[in-house]
Amino acid sequence: MNEVRIGIIGVGNMGSSHANYLLKGSVDKARLTALLEKDEQRSEVLKGKFPDNVTVFTDRKAFFESGLVDAVIIATPHYDHVEIAKEAFAHGLHVLCEKPAGVYTKQVREMNEAAKKSGKVFSLMYNQRTNPMYQKLRDLIQSGELGEIRRINWIITDWYRSQSYYDSGSWRATWAGEGGGVLINQCPHNLDLWQWMTGMMPKRIRAFCNFGKYRNIEVEDEVTAYAEYENGATAVFITTTGEAPGTNRLEVAGDRGKVVIENGQMDFWRLRVPEPEFNREYKGGFGTPECWKVEVPIVGKETAHPGITQNFVRKIVDGEALLAPGEDGVKGLELSNAMHLSTWLDDWVEFPVNEELYLEHLQKRIKTSTFKESTATVLDVEGTY
Amino acid sequence: MNEVRIGIIGVGNMGSSHANYLLKGSVDKARLTALLEKDEQRSEVLKGKFPDNVTVFTDRKAFFESGLVDAVIIATPHYDHVEIAKEAFAHGLHVLCEKPAGVYTKQVREMNEAAKKSGKVFSLMYNQRTNPMYQKLRDLIQSGELGEIRRINWIITDWYRSQSYYDSGSWRATWAGEGGGVLINQCPHNLDLWQWMTGMMPKRIRAFCNFGKYRNIEVEDEVTAYAEYENGATAVFITTTGEAPGTNRLEVAGDRGKVVIENGQMDFWRLRVPEPEFNREYKGGFGTPECWKVEVPIVGKETAHPGITQNFVRKIVDGEALLAPGEDGVKGLELSNAMHLSTWLDDWVEFPVNEELYLEHLQKRIKTSTFKESTATVLDVEGTY
Repeated sequence: MNEVRIGIIGVGNMGSSHANYLLKGSVDKARLTALLEKDEQRSEVLKGKFPDNVTVFTDRKAFFESGLVDAVIIATPHYDHVEIAKEAFAHGLHVLCEKPAGVYTKQVREMNEAAKKSGKVFSLMYNQRTNPMYQKLRDLIQSGELGEIRRINWIITDWYRSQSYYDSGSWRATWAGEGGGVLINQCPHNLDLWQWMTGMMPKRIRAFCNFGKYRNIEVEDEVTAYAEYENGATAVFITTTGEAPGTNRLEVAGDRGKVVIENGQMDFWRLRVPEPEFNREYKGGFGTPECWKVEVPIVGKETAHPGITQNFVRKIVDGEALLAPGEDGVKGLELSNAMHLSTWLDDWVEFPVNEELYLEHLQKRIKTSTFKESTATVLDVEGTY
Repeated sequence: MNEVRIGIIGVGNMGSSHANYLLKGSVDKARLTALLEKDEQRSEVLKGKFPDNVTVFTDRKAFFESGLVDAVIIATPHYDHVEIAKEAFAHGLHVLCEKPAGVYTKQVREMNEAAKKSGKVFSLMYNQRTNPMYQKLRDLIQSGELGEIRRINWIITDWYRSQSYYDSGSWRATWAGEGGGVLINQCPHNLDLWQWMTGMMPKRIRAFCNFGKYRNIEVEDEVTAYAEYENGATAVFITTTGEAPGTNRLEVAGDRGKVVIENGQMDFWRLRVPEPEFNREYKGGFGTPECWKVEVPIVGKETAHPGITQNFVRKIVDGEALLAPGEDGVKGLELSNAMHLSTWLDDWVEFPVNEELYLEHLQKRIKTSTFKESTATVLDVEGTY
């Protein structure tokens, strides 16, 4: 295959953005050929806006049977991701799915099984993985420059959303419509980076979600989570959509130094000898290990969404390694599910998270959700339980 | 009274430091007249080092009955604070006590009762209250410039202590000798500032202490604590003695802005209108409140220990208001006690903390403590239960 014909499913905010950069030719060896938008009114608008060689569908079956696409980008509401992805794989199409891959891990496992069976490429829109700063931190951690990881602290409170944002769609910030709040809508990137950079998943989590604290919504708009790892490391993750001006500060401390990323800058302090070695040999009481502030070059620029799409296309065409393979969709989501579940149980949640228990508790909330329009979605979720 | 004659009780690291600045005349209207050091060998050294008008005692009774002092500074190990303070008040002396006032809140309440009965001045060595930056943050919070407090985050991990520090005294970092680790020895200042600056105590705390994680000690050397307040605010407090290079970063977010103190600098971001007002009026979806970075002048310098002693002396001589009154000794300690207790119970701890329950759990640990020398101390603690 020399060129990948791409269809976009769900042409709202994100779907439109993907369509636009594809149309501008920002992704090599890719061509936008089709759009699937079930909303009649919006699809009419799309027909007027896009050139004739981009076919606009409102009917899902017609779209999948058109033979016009080799791959799809899924940008629908979260609950629909799993079913659409499975249908795409069944039609022999490659899939690039918006985050979160699904609302609960069971869905994402099913998506991955379908991908495996089809032999097609499955990638996720984890565009922040293209940020060279996060890539460099991952490099420092995984190459051992930071030593054994001891403490992680991410304050990511700059996801400000006003009530008018939440009021802009009745599915927003509802259990039935989205399946969660800041964890499921805004934070999937941070939760993914957290596990991807460190290469570690916690042993257990104790989390404190506040639901509808700052906004008139039914899901969480503030979260503080504490995690413990097998190697003894601890982590704190704090997020909210109710704070202004927020903070985005990530600190990772290892036994060989410390990295802080804040305000688009990475600072790296490196111990001359690892802390445990200093501690073993030092006899002077109050002293501290010698520490150097190191300037690490950060090369390259963040290619963002087009970068992930380009990588997806190159994987299909040239077999390039995926930056965000579909299997990784489970991990960040498991962190998010654990935070919800820990709050609901008011207790620790051990990893791997009990998927059935999570789903049971989620179902309860879906049943009493204010979002009632999409009864189909609710039933759908019930069906997979 | 025109001049306060001061005696220092316990002339170790801190006691020597107090003696030295007093001797140099750094504190107006104060004169060092006596030292009480029960260690015979050390008291001999002191006799050689100090001028003849400073009388060195090894006998507590003789010291208290000498008539040489109007006020004492207590700088002994923590467990002895309460008994010595009570004795001083009984002798009609004013008391300035090193931090922590005691190991458990019951002790500090007793000290305050004794102070009240005697009518003498009781102050605590919370020297970090003299830092103009913390004073300014307190001012911003309590005058309402930050609005309603929503979130507090203090990462105070620059209390590095090597094993050789802990090995320098058999009482160090033991339940029987100190009554705790980083919370009771290093953090009393931070815990005090936390409650003093905000003027708030939590409703409940869920904490995660790790005991002897990085050092061969029986007490906590790493703590992560999560607190919830009556007004809905949340807080995270993180500390350890095992990390290098550590961090000292305090962030306070209110509904009118945010302050960050780090690297000896205070940054203040202020919203043009309070966040709830913006949220109520804004209809545009993704927008955020207008935010100004404000430069707030920080005047004065940190007068530290001599500053607190000066304030204590001025209170005695001129009736100046105390910067760190004895009553405040309970609050920071209650935070620390709550963090221990929450870990021991593996559960929430509500405020006010159940003192009896805390003491019961502390006793258990004192009984199996490796520090056995001071049986008297252990019995003493038992007696108060």
